[in-house]
Amino acid sequence: LTSATVGDVGESELLRLIAERTGTPPAGEVWAGDDAAVLAMSSHSLLATDCIVENLDFSFSYCSGADIGWKALAINASDIAAMGGRPLHAVASLGMPPSLPLAVFEDVLEGLLQGTEHLRMSLVGGDLSGAREVFLSVTVTGSAELPILRSGAKPGDEICVTGSLGGSNGGLFALRNGVDKGLPGVEALARRHLRPEARVAAGMALAAGGVTALIDVSDGFALDLTRLLRASGQGCEVSSDALPIEPGLEILAREAGGPEPVEAALTGGEDYELICTIEPSLVASVAEAVEQTGTSLTVVGRVTEGEMNLDGRPLREREHLGWDHLRNL
Amino acid sequence: LTSATVGDVGESELLRLIAERTGTPPAGEVWAGDDAAVLAMSSHSLLATDCIVENLDFSFSYCSGADIGWKALAINASDIAAMGGRPLHAVASLGMPPSLPLAVFEDVLEGLLQGTEHLRMSLVGGDLSGAREVFLSVTVTGSAELPILRSGAKPGDEICVTGSLGGSNGGLFALRNGVDKGLPGVEALARRHLRPEARVAAGMALAAGGVTALIDVSDGFALDLTRLLRASGQGCEVSSDALPIEPGLEILAREAGGPEPVEAALTGGEDYELICTIEPSLVASVAEAVEQTGTSLTVVGRVTEGEMNLDGRPLREREHLGWDHLRNL
Repeated sequence: LTSATVGDVGESELLRLIAERTGTPPAGEVWAGDDAAVLAMSSHSLLATDCIVENLDFSFSYCSGADIGWKALAINASDIAAMGGRPLHAVASLGMPPSLPLAVFEDVLEGLLQGTEHLRMSLVGGDLSGAREVFLSVTVTGSAELPILRSGAKPGDEICVTGSLGGSNGGLFALRNGVDKGLPGVEALARRHLRPEARVAAGMALAAGGVTALIDVSDGFALDLTRLLRASGQGCEVSSDALPIEPGLEILAREAGGPEPVEAALTGGEDYELICTIEPSLVASVAEAVEQTGTSLTVVGRVTEGEMNLDGRPLREREHLGWDHLRNL
Repeated sequence: LTSATVGDVGESELLRLIAERTGTPPAGEVWAGDDAAVLAMSSHSLLATDCIVENLDFSFSYCSGADIGWKALAINASDIAAMGGRPLHAVASLGMPPSLPLAVFEDVLEGLLQGTEHLRMSLVGGDLSGAREVFLSVTVTGSAELPILRSGAKPGDEICVTGSLGGSNGGLFALRNGVDKGLPGVEALARRHLRPEARVAAGMALAAGGVTALIDVSDGFALDLTRLLRASGQGCEVSSDALPIEPGLEILAREAGGPEPVEAALTGGEDYELICTIEPSLVASVAEAVEQTGTSLTVVGRVTEGEMNLDGRPLREREHLGWDHLRNL
């Protein structure tokens, strides 16, 4: 059966394979196998959806099926984290050509389930469809006592970001260009691209700590910060010197012609770190809470009533702020 | 701007167009524009996802953008109806080539919103992505006081179906083969294929009336009935003479070489009628309740402890029970 394709096996057998793997729902819930999933939800719920598409968001030349499953789940969980919420349930819609090897399908499922297990979520349903290229659209539910929106930043708030920036962009460069994995840091960069971490625990710590606005870095720090500030009706002064740049980027640039580190950190996208704004007196305690979740929090600038500025020049002067999912094909 | 493509306009302008159209959320909810939608939900929630793909589930040669938007919404609402639930919120993930005319994008959005308005739902978020072919993956939330599963059918229950069967298959034939729209009933058949009705009010009436099991006809009456009975661990005796066959099919078969009406009703798929099982003493009252929602309920057979039989012969002997989304490309 190792050479079987998904078309050889057919939909009903694939559904059986999935049901074997997704586990048993708690009493009162129904997951896959009926028309819709039945879920016990809290009174305020979150709903996020995001999709990845072959040859646009990923290529099988450098991604395994498991990478794709993990990533589609993680980028949705990151949207829930960016509300300060806890992701709970996922449904996945997978399009694939009938000629796709069955082993790749099983690998996608494996990656989805590695992701749900890692985040203590459940895969509760989905849809299988034919398609010329593989796509995986995931929808995630979540809950939050008090969702943190993009729109609450106030002048004088510090602008902070979790973890480090630019790693996913560096990893994509290394994967596409076949950079030697012996080069220090290259494995870690590739992992940042293929296996992003949704900052769920950090997001909940930020929400509990009183941040005023929150967004995740999916399309590039500069573009996502612009979105937060526009939603809040504020400006900023951000210093590129303060950005927490992914360690491996410098060696990659020097030894393998990789992207300029500051540029990668500003516009690279797909880092899935969290940008937040906080009243200055709260920064120290919030940073400590974030560190207890296993990552860091770095102050990179301040919210102002003026323009959005980077290093004293308008952010919008930058020709390329980040990733437009339609223009940049 | 009439010749603009989605790639000319870019993602942020498309998102602005969508936000203009989706309306204002009630107090305490946040829809599009943040990382995830915030929803006020009931304690038991339903979640369904379904996807349609260009050149597999539809072709622009006979579908408008609005047809596609309507249909992707309706097939998900039908899954909620098949639990006896009320659909509430939708998120949509749309993949499209940058060369897609902007007018088609706007038309897809229009169809989605026609659908949500028709069913008193709200489009609360989504995702835009590039893709070589258009796909539209929709996820719908719903609520149900008591979700009706596929697994509750009991021996002796009557098997009933709402409305009429085979219309969507006849409509697809007429559309693909350019059958003259002057032929009586052809317009109605095409509409059954392009603009399916989710039987939400009927599903709620069936649930309130005490049906024991419920499923919608998405992949063909025979296949979906088989799924219900397998989940219930029961058999059946169904009579093809009793099937409520869509009126236009006979003329289509006679005058335009359309599909054999009984075959279309049994295996055609995409009718989005509801199949239920009911204790015999309740059939009359439930049928009356369904009629008050604007459709009919027809008894087509009975649940047994034996095999699944159609006209006295095993259903599984039929070579082609219905639609497999991967095998039948």
